[in-house]
Amino acid sequence: MKGSTEYSERRNKLLVALHQARAQAFLITGLPSVRYLSGFTGSDGYVLLTTERSILITDPRYEIQAAQESDCEVRIVKGPLLKEVATWVRRFRLTALAVEQNRIGFDEYTELRAALPKVRLKPISGAVEHLRMIKSAAEVATIKASVQLNSAALEQALKSFKPSLSEVDFAAEIEYRMRRLGADGPAFETIVASGARTALPHAHPTDRPIQPDQLLLVDMGARVAGYCSDMTRTHAVGKLNPKVRRMYRAVLESQLAAIDSVKPGATCTAVDRAARDVLRGYGWDRLFIHSTGHGLGLEIHEGPRVGRKDRTKLEAGMVITIEPGVYLENVGGIRIEDTVAVTKSGGEVLTPTGKELVVL
Amino acid sequence: MKGSTEYSERRNKLLVALHQARAQAFLITGLPSVRYLSGFTGSDGYVLLTTERSILITDPRYEIQAAQESDCEVRIVKGPLLKEVATWVRRFRLTALAVEQNRIGFDEYTELRAALPKVRLKPISGAVEHLRMIKSAAEVATIKASVQLNSAALEQALKSFKPSLSEVDFAAEIEYRMRRLGADGPAFETIVASGARTALPHAHPTDRPIQPDQLLLVDMGARVAGYCSDMTRTHAVGKLNPKVRRMYRAVLESQLAAIDSVKPGATCTAVDRAARDVLRGYGWDRLFIHSTGHGLGLEIHEGPRVGRKDRTKLEAGMVITIEPGVYLENVGGIRIEDTVAVTKSGGEVLTPTGKELVVL
Repeated sequence: MKGSTEYSERRNKLLVALHQARAQAFLITGLPSVRYLSGFTGSDGYVLLTTERSILITDPRYEIQAAQESDCEVRIVKGPLLKEVATWVRRFRLTALAVEQNRIGFDEYTELRAALPKVRLKPISGAVEHLRMIKSAAEVATIKASVQLNSAALEQALKSFKPSLSEVDFAAEIEYRMRRLGADGPAFETIVASGARTALPHAHPTDRPIQPDQLLLVDMGARVAGYCSDMTRTHAVGKLNPKVRRMYRAVLESQLAAIDSVKPGATCTAVDRAARDVLRGYGWDRLFIHSTGHGLGLEIHEGPRVGRKDRTKLEAGMVITIEPGVYLENVGGIRIEDTVAVTKSGGEVLTPTGKELVVL
Repeated sequence: MKGSTEYSERRNKLLVALHQARAQAFLITGLPSVRYLSGFTGSDGYVLLTTERSILITDPRYEIQAAQESDCEVRIVKGPLLKEVATWVRRFRLTALAVEQNRIGFDEYTELRAALPKVRLKPISGAVEHLRMIKSAAEVATIKASVQLNSAALEQALKSFKPSLSEVDFAAEIEYRMRRLGADGPAFETIVASGARTALPHAHPTDRPIQPDQLLLVDMGARVAGYCSDMTRTHAVGKLNPKVRRMYRAVLESQLAAIDSVKPGATCTAVDRAARDVLRGYGWDRLFIHSTGHGLGLEIHEGPRVGRKDRTKLEAGMVITIEPGVYLENVGGIRIEDTVAVTKSGGEVLTPTGKELVVL
């Protein structure tokens, strides 16, 4: 990616927020945003951005890698990176430095405060995240590749599925397939839950064997070139009772209604309501205990939040999940989730995996 | 683990720090410390600790799981968790609340500040991390299980190794073996680097085929029941030139010297110096561009830091890595790393994998 103008374009956009905050420089402390603005993929680094300079500060482990990945000026520092930040702020004679309110630690802020007593620190909330919500065509293409790889991994893993396999072993198989297909790794800990454990929306896989005549819920995402995908499918292992089959139909109907409501200008609350209204018709809206979805990109959870309270209007270029679910303690849970790109005309479901109830 | 007295013992120890800070309650915001003190493994939660009550606050996704995992009082909250924290602080009529200086976000602090204008917030740095540095016998046993599983995974993966395999595919194989052996997952992104890429201490695996007559560096860790392991081995794929073989000998000698210096009462700087002195004898100390090691436990990087500046004295119950390395741009890098428990009499190397140069 080095030499690409993509990063400098993003940095230029950020200068507007900087200007609005009446600051002369912006310190980027959140790692996903460091990557977004500089291309650097290491686990330790800051970007210091002024109108004239873009400086990536990291430690000696990343000396070679940072130079390879980033088009910023790279400064390699032994010891605390914030000390180097303070040195540059003094060298540039800056009087106002913007910091990422929602990505800077309290102790980082305190340290900076002490090191730069004469500099005004201006906490700005979500400026980079705001840019990141709208994906470029290249980013959407990368997310699409991630989504397709994720679906291919599930398809391959299901071929080797047999009841009596443990939840953990099936999760291992899925993540192995992701890696072999070229993923950086899973975007989050793969959820494989069977039977009554499907009622736990974030179940850790256990070593219990997957039993026949039960639900099998798989929530999985890959990371490809840094970008996340996210999909949930709930399968039947053998026969399900009529109530559970009805739950499946209700969730699928709810998911389709929410997807149908996706279009530029629609609020996140409206999409959430579309999903919830269907479940209310079944009397199960109270069993839907989380939001309908969330943005994703370099992080698995990004803005907007497709829930009851986020009144953000959808825009072309956003990529979100749509994932209603119902959870009934001691019985089971159903969740169906796709990754959906907001286009100029509506919502494009990126996930190619079918949603009919698959019986294993 | 629920019902175990382990968590309440830990919480009791923390009350001492609370007393010293003259605060009546402690808000735990760092997730690994939330797990350490409550047993809760979810991705969203706070613990509010007073002398009389231990309250775990999380969201509805974790309602069932939190009750299963934790011996704390569980409060399930829709919406911002900090609002619930503030409600309890007011209900208890607290006037001073300790917060984790190094684990609370600037925006969390700001939100709490605004919600509780009359309450003194007392940032405390590293109180839980300080407790976590000294592992109980049960914790050391869990880390040992993690280390052994990690070594078994490498052994299994090496059986299927062949040159022409890509770095990514070998990393996939390693992580698959971990999972099949019962790990929660890898403790960090597995590093598989070959040839000149071994000179990057934190290389991401690429899809380039592993070539003969080169180095192959593998840095891997498993997570077992939450606890991390960490090991690096550098292998020869075919023949290596005499200089690189000499580098291997130097790093191994350096690593053994550092392990030999591990004992209760030794400072971290002394252990680091032991490693560095050997490399200085070879004229390669300037190529050793990171610390000698770090503590590990629920997180892959914990205290103490075995480096040039941390003057912490080792104590029985600490578990640290010893991992010197030398890195020569365009040639290659060597790193050898074990996980070592500090015992009453010295250092016990937990890692069973041999350290002679293995030729694949």
